[in-house]
Amino acid sequence: MGKNDRMERRERADAARNRQAILRAAEELLRRHPPEQVSIERVAAAAGVGKGTVFHRFGSRAGLMVELMAERARELEQAIATGPPPLGPGAEPVDRLVAFFTAVALLASRNGNLMAAHEHAMVTRKAAETPREANPIYLYWHGHVSGLIAEARPEVDAELIAHMLLGTLHMEPIASRLRAGEHERLAAAFATLVRGLLDRGALGGG
Amino acid sequence: MGKNDRMERRERADAARNRQAILRAAEELLRRHPPEQVSIERVAAAAGVGKGTVFHRFGSRAGLMVELMAERARELEQAIATGPPPLGPGAEPVDRLVAFFTAVALLASRNGNLMAAHEHAMVTRKAAETPREANPIYLYWHGHVSGLIAEARPEVDAELIAHMLLGTLHMEPIASRLRAGEHERLAAAFATLVRGLLDRGALGGG
Repeated sequence: MGKNDRMERRERADAARNRQAILRAAEELLRRHPPEQVSIERVAAAAGVGKGTVFHRFGSRAGLMVELMAERARELEQAIATGPPPLGPGAEPVDRLVAFFTAVALLASRNGNLMAAHEHAMVTRKAAETPREANPIYLYWHGHVSGLIAEARPEVDAELIAHMLLGTLHMEPIASRLRAGEHERLAAAFATLVRGLLDRGALGGG
Repeated sequence: MGKNDRMERRERADAARNRQAILRAAEELLRRHPPEQVSIERVAAAAGVGKGTVFHRFGSRAGLMVELMAERARELEQAIATGPPPLGPGAEPVDRLVAFFTAVALLASRNGNLMAAHEHAMVTRKAAETPREANPIYLYWHGHVSGLIAEARPEVDAELIAHMLLGTLHMEPIASRLRAGEHERLAAAFATLVRGLLDRGALGGG
């Protein structure tokens, strides 16, 4: 290996370390402060890097928020795709849906400030007409939820009902309860709705 | 009856007529135009009154929007309190809930522009923290929905589930479908959720 190769590998390792340090610092700050108080300067200082490094890695404050939420969502996506049941494959649709909404309620509760910052960043970056439906995280969640509903009850309007269930996470009376840490209460309410919807077999009703 | 009495009665009748003419004109304009294009000037011209009369009766454009929505909501409230079943008293909770969400989906579909204008007016007039929960229309709807859920299934979290169901009306993927006239599809999805939730008797699940 030549000297240039060694330098390049070292630079890549430095970059990956910086990226992780910046994401962890942003996460930690968002846990304790409202998003509008989490500036690039503050993140850079907490991560021990220069402000220019943050801009270089993430483009902007909005880019950092979007990337942080994307990382959380990827972890959940992996658990859904290949993790153990009931969140992962192998359980009944109703139990997978209950596990999914329990995980999402916890994620939203732990990251209420992050979700608010991410929503804001998405709206700022994209056209405001279709912010939620155009969001790849939302699209994946909606596909998962509507797929499980359709599997258990092919006769109902799974596409629309999935939007209704997921939409509740974003509306204000619910979002403020999540920020207050009431994720177990929300998870129980989701379980009530989901079990009512799917534990019915051939009863119909749509 | 003296001359002054007759004049006062005539003035009150004129005021009531003007008020109705202004509300009907605003309603008609909102049906055909986005709310930001429905100015006080335009409403006054369509109602055949002066701009000052509109301001005198309603205080502001926001006041006019709030009053118009309040009138619609009062009609629904009357149907719920004293109208025929299943919307009014006398039917099973599950059938009353299905009838309520069918009526609300239709109201939201016919008045999508009005609802958007009303929401905006409420947010502008009040503190942004609790716009929806502080709205008297929302409070009445929430009381009705949570009361019927609790009547049929006292063991579930009726208060939170009522917020979840009502919140779906305001979120973007649903609101845009309502503006596109898909109220029957939304009413059917509500019926699926509500029948799943309430047609279960002692099965539990929360």
